[in-house]
Amino acid sequence: MEEHSNQYAEAAVPQTMQETGAEERDPESIALHQPLLLKRNRTLSSTPLAMVGAKVSHIESLDYEINENDLFMHDWRSRTKVQVLQYVFLKWILAFLVGLLTGIIATLINLATENIAGYKLLAAVSFIEKERYLMGFIFIAGVNLLLTASASVLCVCFAPTAAGPGIPEIKAYLNGVDTPNMFGATIMIVKIFGSIGAVSAGLDLGKEGPLVHIGSCIASLLGQGGPDNYRIKWGWLRYFNNDCDQRDIITCGAASGVCAAFRAPVGGVLFALEEVATWWRSALLWRTFFSTAIVVVVLRAFIQICNSGECGLFGKGGLIMFDVSTVTVTYHAWDIIPVAVIGIIGGVWGSMYNYLLDKILRLYSLINQKGKVHKLLLSLTVSLFTSACLYGLPFLVECTPCNSSLSESVCPTNEGSGNYKKFNCPDGHYNDLATLLLATNDDAVRNIFSTNTSAEYRPLSLLIFFVLYCILGLFTLGIAVPSGLFLPIILMGSAYGRLLGIAMQSYTSIDQGLFAVLGAASLMAGSMRMTISLCVIFLELTNNLLLLPITMIVLLISKTVGDSFNPSIYEIILHLKGLPFLEAHPEPWMRNLTVGELADAKPPVVTLRGIEKVDRIVEVLRNTTHNGFPVVEEVVPPMGLAVGATEVHGLILRAHLVQVLKKKWFLREKRRTEEWEVREKFTSVELAEREAKIEEVAVTRDEMEMYVDLHPLTNRTPYTVMEGMSVAKAMVLFRQVGLRHLLIVPKYEASGVPPLVGILTRQDLIAYNILNAFPHLTKSAGREKGN
Amino acid sequence: MEEHSNQYAEAAVPQTMQETGAEERDPESIALHQPLLLKRNRTLSSTPLAMVGAKVSHIESLDYEINENDLFMHDWRSRTKVQVLQYVFLKWILAFLVGLLTGIIATLINLATENIAGYKLLAAVSFIEKERYLMGFIFIAGVNLLLTASASVLCVCFAPTAAGPGIPEIKAYLNGVDTPNMFGATIMIVKIFGSIGAVSAGLDLGKEGPLVHIGSCIASLLGQGGPDNYRIKWGWLRYFNNDCDQRDIITCGAASGVCAAFRAPVGGVLFALEEVATWWRSALLWRTFFSTAIVVVVLRAFIQICNSGECGLFGKGGLIMFDVSTVTVTYHAWDIIPVAVIGIIGGVWGSMYNYLLDKILRLYSLINQKGKVHKLLLSLTVSLFTSACLYGLPFLVECTPCNSSLSESVCPTNEGSGNYKKFNCPDGHYNDLATLLLATNDDAVRNIFSTNTSAEYRPLSLLIFFVLYCILGLFTLGIAVPSGLFLPIILMGSAYGRLLGIAMQSYTSIDQGLFAVLGAASLMAGSMRMTISLCVIFLELTNNLLLLPITMIVLLISKTVGDSFNPSIYEIILHLKGLPFLEAHPEPWMRNLTVGELADAKPPVVTLRGIEKVDRIVEVLRNTTHNGFPVVEEVVPPMGLAVGATEVHGLILRAHLVQVLKKKWFLREKRRTEEWEVREKFTSVELAEREAKIEEVAVTRDEMEMYVDLHPLTNRTPYTVMEGMSVAKAMVLFRQVGLRHLLIVPKYEASGVPPLVGILTRQDLIAYNILNAFPHLTKSAGREKGN
Repeated sequence: MEEHSNQYAEAAVPQTMQETGAEERDPESIALHQPLLLKRNRTLSSTPLAMVGAKVSHIESLDYEINENDLFMHDWRSRTKVQVLQYVFLKWILAFLVGLLTGIIATLINLATENIAGYKLLAAVSFIEKERYLMGFIFIAGVNLLLTASASVLCVCFAPTAAGPGIPEIKAYLNGVDTPNMFGATIMIVKIFGSIGAVSAGLDLGKEGPLVHIGSCIASLLGQGGPDNYRIKWGWLRYFNNDCDQRDIITCGAASGVCAAFRAPVGGVLFALEEVATWWRSALLWRTFFSTAIVVVVLRAFIQICNSGECGLFGKGGLIMFDVSTVTVTYHAWDIIPVAVIGIIGGVWGSMYNYLLDKILRLYSLINQKGKVHKLLLSLTVSLFTSACLYGLPFLVECTPCNSSLSESVCPTNEGSGNYKKFNCPDGHYNDLATLLLATNDDAVRNIFSTNTSAEYRPLSLLIFFVLYCILGLFTLGIAVPSGLFLPIILMGSAYGRLLGIAMQSYTSIDQGLFAVLGAASLMAGSMRMTISLCVIFLELTNNLLLLPITMIVLLISKTVGDSFNPSIYEIILHLKGLPFLEAHPEPWMRNLTVGELADAKPPVVTLRGIEKVDRIVEVLRNTTHNGFPVVEEVVPPMGLAVGATEVHGLILRAHLVQVLKKKWFLREKRRTEEWEVREKFTSVELAEREAKIEEVAVTRDEMEMYVDLHPLTNRTPYTVMEGMSVAKAMVLFRQVGLRHLLIVPKYEASGVPPLVGILTRQDLIAYNILNAFPHLTKSAGREKGN
Repeated sequence: MEEHSNQYAEAAVPQTMQETGAEERDPESIALHQPLLLKRNRTLSSTPLAMVGAKVSHIESLDYEINENDLFMHDWRSRTKVQVLQYVFLKWILAFLVGLLTGIIATLINLATENIAGYKLLAAVSFIEKERYLMGFIFIAGVNLLLTASASVLCVCFAPTAAGPGIPEIKAYLNGVDTPNMFGATIMIVKIFGSIGAVSAGLDLGKEGPLVHIGSCIASLLGQGGPDNYRIKWGWLRYFNNDCDQRDIITCGAASGVCAAFRAPVGGVLFALEEVATWWRSALLWRTFFSTAIVVVVLRAFIQICNSGECGLFGKGGLIMFDVSTVTVTYHAWDIIPVAVIGIIGGVWGSMYNYLLDKILRLYSLINQKGKVHKLLLSLTVSLFTSACLYGLPFLVECTPCNSSLSESVCPTNEGSGNYKKFNCPDGHYNDLATLLLATNDDAVRNIFSTNTSAEYRPLSLLIFFVLYCILGLFTLGIAVPSGLFLPIILMGSAYGRLLGIAMQSYTSIDQGLFAVLGAASLMAGSMRMTISLCVIFLELTNNLLLLPITMIVLLISKTVGDSFNPSIYEIILHLKGLPFLEAHPEPWMRNLTVGELADAKPPVVTLRGIEKVDRIVEVLRNTTHNGFPVVEEVVPPMGLAVGATEVHGLILRAHLVQVLKKKWFLREKRRTEEWEVREKFTSVELAEREAKIEEVAVTRDEMEMYVDLHPLTNRTPYTVMEGMSVAKAMVLFRQVGLRHLLIVPKYEASGVPPLVGILTRQDLIAYNILNAFPHLTKSAGREKGN
């Protein structure tokens, strides 16, 4: 039985189920497990936590099982070669479109943010040049507030789920959790404009996470043929109306998003592979790779167009974002020491950051729950604080005289993206903190990564920068705007990396800019715990292959250190959002519990018969929230079996039952139907629909007395496990095959034994839920946590 | 039941099984399916094909299932935190050692080949300088024959499985096929020295494939604690004595091998991921990455040492093998045309090459079967032909005058690794074909990839080079020496790439050297059908990130074109070797067949009872080759069940049964034993042993009458499917979970129904075998092949 609605959000539902438990069971049906009253209150439920912006209302699972009912089998058998080619062709076309659209939208976002933020900063600088400092602050704070407010209002009013990075939800989706309201057209539009607003407002957040989400939204919308209510009913698209193909195309979208964010095609694929996707196939790898190739071609084309200067302040960066290839990397055996130090700092600070972020997100979640106004006020407060810091702090540091070897056009400058910002300094001097703070986030990274500029930044400025971005990074993520995690982490990491580079100056020949790169990489690994995808992303970001071996060592050290403290930031957010994510490995204590014991802790399974009365179906659908019902039958003796023989015919989905009621496919007498009868009534496109509400169905009193032949609509071959199977092994099966329902069959073969012990669903296999139902396991869970 | 020995190699065994079929079944056991005599000859078997050097004697499956018998459960429960830490620590230590040793051995192989081949070529050149051309030929041909002979003798006499690339076998191993004699110490040593001999002999083969195999051998040997007969009995290593951990570490080894071959750490990991590994987990990715990082550090250290000139002719190359980063890549929209042309040529020629290679390998397999002398003679013939071509062909082309802009030290040269070889030319001239042919293979690639040398090679020379290497590439792979596929393909591809570059000279600004790189990439994709790993390998080989977008497009086009003709070269070799590889996707027609029908086509399942007589066990073990036996019991009525109730208690492994007989753990009376009794007798280390021969066990007549309690040794929770499940869905389960045995249970619940319908194994799920047993499916299989 499966997928109880989240107790936190709709606590009433499981209760209803328990109350109606006794009536629910058909007295005529075969004797099932007796309801054990004592165990009743140990019902399995989901984590009672939910984060800002994510009203986890009713979390469903996705279904990757091959549904073998008569109708689908027939549909599949009758597919001609042409249809198969259509399908393959469409898959590639969709991958192409995902890449194309993600590339275009990413360019537009970049164009918008760099121009808005750029002209805003230029205006502020002109105030400063005229020494009208207060006016400058009022202007910059006002514009930032306005931009933040617009982003926040969009999020709060139209799409609460568009707040935050979105990557954890996509990760959960690709794990098989049907995260609600994540891939709609509204979400996408809010995410695009919200992201432009939030990034332009100078908040400490990036557009990388949102771009991944936008890529996935594009993919999902293309795959289903448009927004929910205005889908294109194009015949070809029906092949994609299933969870498997949707999953594949959303993986493409996520990879395209990363690729567009970092202009890193290989890194994008690997990110999708390492961090986001749960299932992975060689063919998928290839299609994902195709999408990201298209993204790169699109980006390159736009950059070439913009190089002629027609895009305002955009397009100076080139295809490689933070190019450090000009510096020759020379390192020796003893350079392992600073490298290891960076790695350790990255690991320690990364896990600390995760820990603090967890606390602050919980705090924010309390504030955000109070209502829309609170959400908005929180965002505006953070924006005001950010503006004050970014504008005010550079006044605290002293001006630095320009190095005489630099030409006057380079130092000092007041242009948008230059190094050596003049700010409030006299001619021939520059303000190093303003260079980092009064720039767009991308420019700040470019400036701090800049190589062969060893004396540019003073330690004090870098320290201020680091402390400021630590504070901002912690307090910005939870506000109700689309926010990426990558950039804040890169900024923090590069600051301490460069600081360390200054400290180590006399010991090593590694450039300070490279130290900044390594610092950024170490903090990413320490917080996000990725390895190979980060490595490739950094390779593609910085275009310096010689850096690869030391990058690898840094990443390995920080991930190891980080992992010994807490899980990755994405896992923390997943947990906060209460999404039932199935881990790759079962917990050790799960080997001590059998699925039979688990089934006992749940309300008894609700079964239907092969030919069932309409009123029973209506009753079951109205009174339960389950999404699948086993079809169990008594077998008539002529089969050569003993009396009392029973058979599990299969599993029927709620959506199909609702379709039956909607179409009023009722029989006057109790009889088996022929295949053609069903085929005439239902198209496989209709049956592929997942959304079906019992509330919309009206059945007359007469019809209630009629029958339905469920056989042709039943998935005849659900996956099963025997009741003696340990939860650990069942979970391996459940996750590897990508199931939604797993039937538990008895291990005894005898008449009188109920043919079904229970059903397992995703919620039942989540460690948290099991420990709630079996408190005695908690002890052993704690003891063996080290495994 | 499972894993019939390969009929091709040991045709007698299945026959014995069929003869003894009737006696085998215990008359007391519950009635099983009646043996259907008509169906008998439709027994499922494996492909009747075997390739050179691979006596496919008795192919077993690996077992990745969690074995939940009492003893293992206890062992696992009693593991302390310290033991868990030991295990984790050891995993990392092993990954470190794999990287370290692979790095060292790869360097030594490089050192040896470059010195042997280099001094050989220098000596030949000195003959040519003295115009003693015939002596030069005799010298070079003689040395090559000697080197080939030594490599071939090693392979033929000591390790036939060391011949060939080895990658397909590793791929099969990681898919769950226990490929015999692939990971021993002998194999590794033969592979190392054979590879040195074969590469130094100037044969058209690389050391890349063998290095992957060597890496895997190192990993396997480390994992199991030494060579088969001299294993270290170190307590810690017992945790690794299972198929899962062996699989993980061999994946590390394969990645390290690729990394060492191409000095491409990320490419190595991705190769292991995309091409070799069937199962993949995030944790594994990370450990693999660690191994390759170590390899790179080792390689770098050696290169630094060798840069001082203490390694003879080795060490000039640097960490990046074929560096083309000096050239600035500029390309425009219309460059898509030459790029697409390269891609199409790569796809067409790649699939053509696969097709021809298939034919030639079949032909060679016939020759090689005739005996060791034939194998040897074949190798020597190929060596002689190669020597004649490499030495003779440069005489056919005219000398080219050196470009006046080049200094005299650069052109002409007679040194080992230089461009512009003088050969037989007068001063101030060079022989362009000799530059390519009279060099080590690595140098040849470096020379043909060389950028900014547009006039160096004349089209005729490149054409001769291309045709020659096509012929050599086809006829060299099948001979009995360790041979890699990468290098021949790179040489062929770069030749036509550069030719195309010359043809397109006036249309495009892409350098000819880059055309050569793209050509090599396209042929690799056309033949091996990898995408992302190739992309990264080429990135790391050539150190030019700007080339990435066009490399991606080339790879995508050639793979698409290639895939429309035939499978990848590795799959072709897998098929030739008759290895039961489980594909990622079930064939479409598998949805029309149920596992019940499949079970009917097999001999009836052999079951044991929970408490079994010794003579029955001995009989079963002697007369069958199955590796797992279901334990099925009648349940005594007090359980509240009807009379005739039965239970599938689980599955017991052959290895464990043999252990029971060896240890003589017999009972005088028919009783259940206590857990401590078993634990006293068997350690879990003993039970983890896979090798156990019934022939080595002697049981007295008295003992034959005693009993064994099989309960504690039985895996209580085998995975099961219902008989109505389609083969397609069962295969998904089988492959995803990594099973060796899959029990088929009846879908009826009634007394009198046998509790087990059959067992499925890997061989039963191979499409070829099913089509043999069900010829009527062949028609539909053909019809739907397009899917």
